[in-house]
Amino acid sequence: MKALVYHGPGVKAWEDVDRPTLVADTDAVVQVDTTTICGTDLHILKGDVPAMVDGRVIGHEAVGTVVETGTAVKNVHLGDRVLVSCISACGTCRFCRESRFGQCVGGGGWILGNEIDGTQAEYVRVPFADTSTYPVPAGVSDEELLMLADILPTGYEVGVLNGQVRPGDVVAVVGAGPIGLSAITGARLFSPSLVIAIDLATSRLEAAKHFGADVVINNGEQDPIAAVRELTGGLGADVAIEAVGVPATFELAADLVRPVGHIANIGVHGKPVTLHLERLWARDVTITTGLVDTFSTPTLLRLLTSKQIDAQRFVTHRFGFDDFLHAYDVFANAGDTGALKVVLSRTG
Amino acid sequence: MKALVYHGPGVKAWEDVDRPTLVADTDAVVQVDTTTICGTDLHILKGDVPAMVDGRVIGHEAVGTVVETGTAVKNVHLGDRVLVSCISACGTCRFCRESRFGQCVGGGGWILGNEIDGTQAEYVRVPFADTSTYPVPAGVSDEELLMLADILPTGYEVGVLNGQVRPGDVVAVVGAGPIGLSAITGARLFSPSLVIAIDLATSRLEAAKHFGADVVINNGEQDPIAAVRELTGGLGADVAIEAVGVPATFELAADLVRPVGHIANIGVHGKPVTLHLERLWARDVTITTGLVDTFSTPTLLRLLTSKQIDAQRFVTHRFGFDDFLHAYDVFANAGDTGALKVVLSRTG
Amino acid sequence: MKALVYHGPGVKAWEDVDRPTLVADTDAVVQVDTTTICGTDLHILKGDVPAMVDGRVIGHEAVGTVVETGTAVKNVHLGDRVLVSCISACGTCRFCRESRFGQCVGGGGWILGNEIDGTQAEYVRVPFADTSTYPVPAGVSDEELLMLADILPTGYEVGVLNGQVRPGDVVAVVGAGPIGLSAITGARLFSPSLVIAIDLATSRLEAAKHFGADVVINNGEQDPIAAVRELTGGLGADVAIEAVGVPATFELAADLVRPVGHIANIGVHGKPVTLHLERLWARDVTITTGLVDTFSTPTLLRLLTSKQIDAQRFVTHRFGFDDFLHAYDVFANAGDTGALKVVLSRTG
Amino acid sequence: MKALVYHGPGVKAWEDVDRPTLVADTDAVVQVDTTTICGTDLHILKGDVPAMVDGRVIGHEAVGTVVETGTAVKNVHLGDRVLVSCISACGTCRFCRESRFGQCVGGGGWILGNEIDGTQAEYVRVPFADTSTYPVPAGVSDEELLMLADILPTGYEVGVLNGQVRPGDVVAVVGAGPIGLSAITGARLFSPSLVIAIDLATSRLEAAKHFGADVVINNGEQDPIAAVRELTGGLGADVAIEAVGVPATFELAADLVRPVGHIANIGVHGKPVTLHLERLWARDVTITTGLVDTFSTPTLLRLLTSKQIDAQRFVTHRFGFDDFLHAYDVFANAGDTGALKVVLSRTG
Repeated sequence: MKALVYHGPGVKAWEDVDRPTLVADTDAVVQVDTTTICGTDLHILKGDVPAMVDGRVIGHEAVGTVVETGTAVKNVHLGDRVLVSCISACGTCRFCRESRFGQCVGGGGWILGNEIDGTQAEYVRVPFADTSTYPVPAGVSDEELLMLADILPTGYEVGVLNGQVRPGDVVAVVGAGPIGLSAITGARLFSPSLVIAIDLATSRLEAAKHFGADVVINNGEQDPIAAVRELTGGLGADVAIEAVGVPATFELAADLVRPVGHIANIGVHGKPVTLHLERLWARDVTITTGLVDTFSTPTLLRLLTSKQIDAQRFVTHRFGFDDFLHAYDVFANAGDTGALKVVLSRTG
Repeated sequence: MKALVYHGPGVKAWEDVDRPTLVADTDAVVQVDTTTICGTDLHILKGDVPAMVDGRVIGHEAVGTVVETGTAVKNVHLGDRVLVSCISACGTCRFCRESRFGQCVGGGGWILGNEIDGTQAEYVRVPFADTSTYPVPAGVSDEELLMLADILPTGYEVGVLNGQVRPGDVVAVVGAGPIGLSAITGARLFSPSLVIAIDLATSRLEAAKHFGADVVINNGEQDPIAAVRELTGGLGADVAIEAVGVPATFELAADLVRPVGHIANIGVHGKPVTLHLERLWARDVTITTGLVDTFSTPTLLRLLTSKQIDAQRFVTHRFGFDDFLHAYDVFANAGDTGALKVVLSRTG
Repeated sequence: MKALVYHGPGVKAWEDVDRPTLVADTDAVVQVDTTTICGTDLHILKGDVPAMVDGRVIGHEAVGTVVETGTAVKNVHLGDRVLVSCISACGTCRFCRESRFGQCVGGGGWILGNEIDGTQAEYVRVPFADTSTYPVPAGVSDEELLMLADILPTGYEVGVLNGQVRPGDVVAVVGAGPIGLSAITGARLFSPSLVIAIDLATSRLEAAKHFGADVVINNGEQDPIAAVRELTGGLGADVAIEAVGVPATFELAADLVRPVGHIANIGVHGKPVTLHLERLWARDVTITTGLVDTFSTPTLLRLLTSKQIDAQRFVTHRFGFDDFLHAYDVFANAGDTGALKVVLSRTG
Repeated sequence: MKALVYHGPGVKAWEDVDRPTLVADTDAVVQVDTTTICGTDLHILKGDVPAMVDGRVIGHEAVGTVVETGTAVKNVHLGDRVLVSCISACGTCRFCRESRFGQCVGGGGWILGNEIDGTQAEYVRVPFADTSTYPVPAGVSDEELLMLADILPTGYEVGVLNGQVRPGDVVAVVGAGPIGLSAITGARLFSPSLVIAIDLATSRLEAAKHFGADVVINNGEQDPIAAVRELTGGLGADVAIEAVGVPATFELAADLVRPVGHIANIGVHGKPVTLHLERLWARDVTITTGLVDTFSTPTLLRLLTSKQIDAQRFVTHRFGFDDFLHAYDVFANAGDTGALKVVLSRTG
């Protein structure tokens, strides 16, 4: 079969590899019908993800069709169409028992396209299939559903739920890329009184408005701290969500939040940040970090089915598998192409 | 001045009474610009509220103008336009310290139009003015604001927050009168996947649809338990909110809820109900009761200002103070008149 | 092998039955080294538990040794000594995903000695062995551990955690049988300022003192409502835990609780109860019900190992398997025998 | 009267000043019977607290007798013996409404001995007396009670409650000075399975054992990260509490905590710290900061009265007011003197 294979920093290829087979009796093999590229995949290609080795298939998001199941798989059957989640869950370890599947210590967690071959391929082996896939519900397109493989639960769990967004809140989202837009989408579910998006790129701020930001601030042109203070009677935002992953944006998020507020970090950081405890020690703030657990996937499926969430609007570009390298270019140059999520389909 | 005075079961009059004066130094006297009638006032007129005595002025909701303040009042000033909340809060007792103002044991709680003269009058004395009134915000009409005196915080706190409504939930609201509609309004703030309204009156179910119910069930015509089961794959509603106050509706709410679900009672009950613990003991349900605390009033003010809540649609009829008795008739005959909330205005 | 078999209301026998074998690949067969009798087993023998049929083995608590495992069992191995929990968990259904294992809809829940053969036998088949058993930790005796099969997590989860016991609380426990004593044990973990035990039997009240009740009230001799009011400045208990399962005790618990308090029902009820909403509607109370989920078992294992919980003191009588019928007599006549938990051991 | 007056960095005197009088009608004047010195007072003397000016009286903890009350004071009466809390609360601002008294924006917060004259004096003016003092309960000595003015609610709220200590947890406390010991005292209320105290001073670690630490680690002699990992099966502590206030100890606390764990900062920081988000971003940690709110003071009073907390053991030295300067020396040289809290009494 064909797959998108990592060959060390900066090198990838859409090439022939062996089709995956069952390894454990809890595995399923899934034919990938639709997949996408994540910002994390770009990090991988820079060589920033230590578990990734030469020859491994990239990708951790897919919608597909089950073609093989291990003998211990109970709930997933041949021919089932399923969402393959970015998080695999053993279902029995202490963290899985507490619904913290992203922290699985029983062999799961974020392993697809990281510790094992991933989803940017014609077929993928999915460990712990019973607890790591979700049946495709009626009335939802594959590409809508695909947004639930990673981006929507990440924005919702790590941004919105960790940030404890409540009705009436002022929510500041630092970074209006796909993850920031996902956080805005999730925050709107709680009826905030004001969602403020902050970014350096005008095109992203335009997208933020479309996704439900009430106010957008270009922090290359305007002081975001002063602007948020003015919008909040000098107090600051109830919740600040960091959706970039560099020191400056985290520090900005921490400066935006009011006393007794929440700072929810979603960004994937490669460097330490400075935490101004000399200012924050007495302000009763809560700072959270997190890898997505996907415990909210069933909730998000209901919200998708009941049209409370519009997942479609994330998809800006569509490609067939044969255009995989081109799709990467379009996604990597989002500043020029306006790409949010690019969808790659078997039938494309 | 004129006021609506209770003279024992079934007897009320719009008559001359002494204008209120300051009693405690924490009091304010407020000129009532707009007031309304609550379902509880009808209970009072039936003689069902034991604290109410002959000669007392009815009413616990108002928007008005401060005309006199005690020497210990700090934050409320002559000429301020304020929302007078149904709950007075001493601000210092153990319950007020914990934001449970409705349970105030320092002389507050629901006292207006109950333990002391109320708001259906040209003037009202408001105890603990600093902690029992809210400044009128810009851009909000008096009649919208008036909905925050009781009905909206009641539906939100006692129905929605106590019921722990979450995004994606199925919420069943038993009773589609003003309080049930307020619960629907509050529930929608959390993006449920399905709001089901249940009532015996077609006109109320029509209103429920207008307020955001996705499905309405006339339980005189249809088995609501079977209907909710069918809508939820046999499981039951995540949250059932009781908004009537009679045994049958409470027992219905308890029958509608799924395992691990919440039953939030808002209704004012005059009789005991039967709780089927022989069915519920193992189902992990949570049942809550509550008098409104109004801790959410600042939040609801923000939601009103940011147009996340439409309070206007509660108001179906408007009267001047001179038509007070007629307004009572219209409100009491809601089945015929379609009345939800009737607004009485000084300038009417 | 020998087992304690139910033969219809009032009839049981310690008799020869077939030794269990694996049915599903997620099963284990466990040699029962130690088991016990639960109050629920007495209900079964009265014919009160509808799922129970003639010929089925009773019992849902054991410590034993794994003698056979299905091919899909990963974490449990031949020869492992394990705690067999009263709750079996499929590990994949919506309730198991949320740690509500008692509500499992994937074939688990309380099934042992109820829907399938139980633990009062020389061997027992344990479904979903990976998610329904726990390894025996070092330094803990079998009979201590056995208290974690049902009674301790039930008191802790359904009584103490549902009741939201907090440091400094006044906790009233209605019923001082094994489950009430378990609730007292669990409540003490949160440093209440006062634990009040209420029962009709002097011997049980003596046990309650031994288990940590600060005050005991014999409600045959003294008005418990007046007594609790006096102990709480007229306010009532912060938390009332019902640990009997009849209408009178539930109604007593509801009468004991203060405004904004919690009523946690643990008792297994056979009849409806009266809920005095005409008194409670405005008091902001929370009432919870629940079957144990055993999500707290790992926590309780740590507390047992670190000696924060004394499980030993529950055990009042010890028997060998050959004395099973006698053990039932002793347990059923707890009023005379003073029995709390009776332990039955293979080696006895 | 005499008072301990700040005269710029490094300079203080026990000298004659004017006796305070009422300023606002919500004030009380309290005769100080007992007071103490806080670590923060040493910071003040170094010149580190910007609001403090030359000529102001230091101190924010006292037990005393009310000698004068403003006309708007309702609940505090002449002759009442009261605890004067470090936090003054206006009782009406948005933060006070939410029980976050430490963040009061209505003129309260930490103002005593900071923005206004403090408690290290024969008399002190206490603003908002109704919401900033607590009646002395029966059966509790003044010096026990004095520990509730700051240290015990700080350890409990900012350390233990923010850190969400639960039964069975492993709790690591970095710093075993008075605040760390207070956090240990508070943590024990929740029955952790293991409390680990970490400090550089042997004498403090001895105190930590006395206060309930199960394990002590001298991080000058032993690698605390390795030690905590070994004690927790490689996972880390459930909760890490920072009780020093320098970068190294915060960073240590962050390194000690397990995935999904809590880092509760209590320390008063003068410099930024480094937050290793490159390690923590995916570990689901929660970091909290906080000034004490004293919402827990009523709870702690109950725990003190019911002997669930031993406050006495904090008091190592006692002085009369005339020895104030000597008391400062003893407290400032805790390493040599073994001082935890020093109590200064009018009658001393």
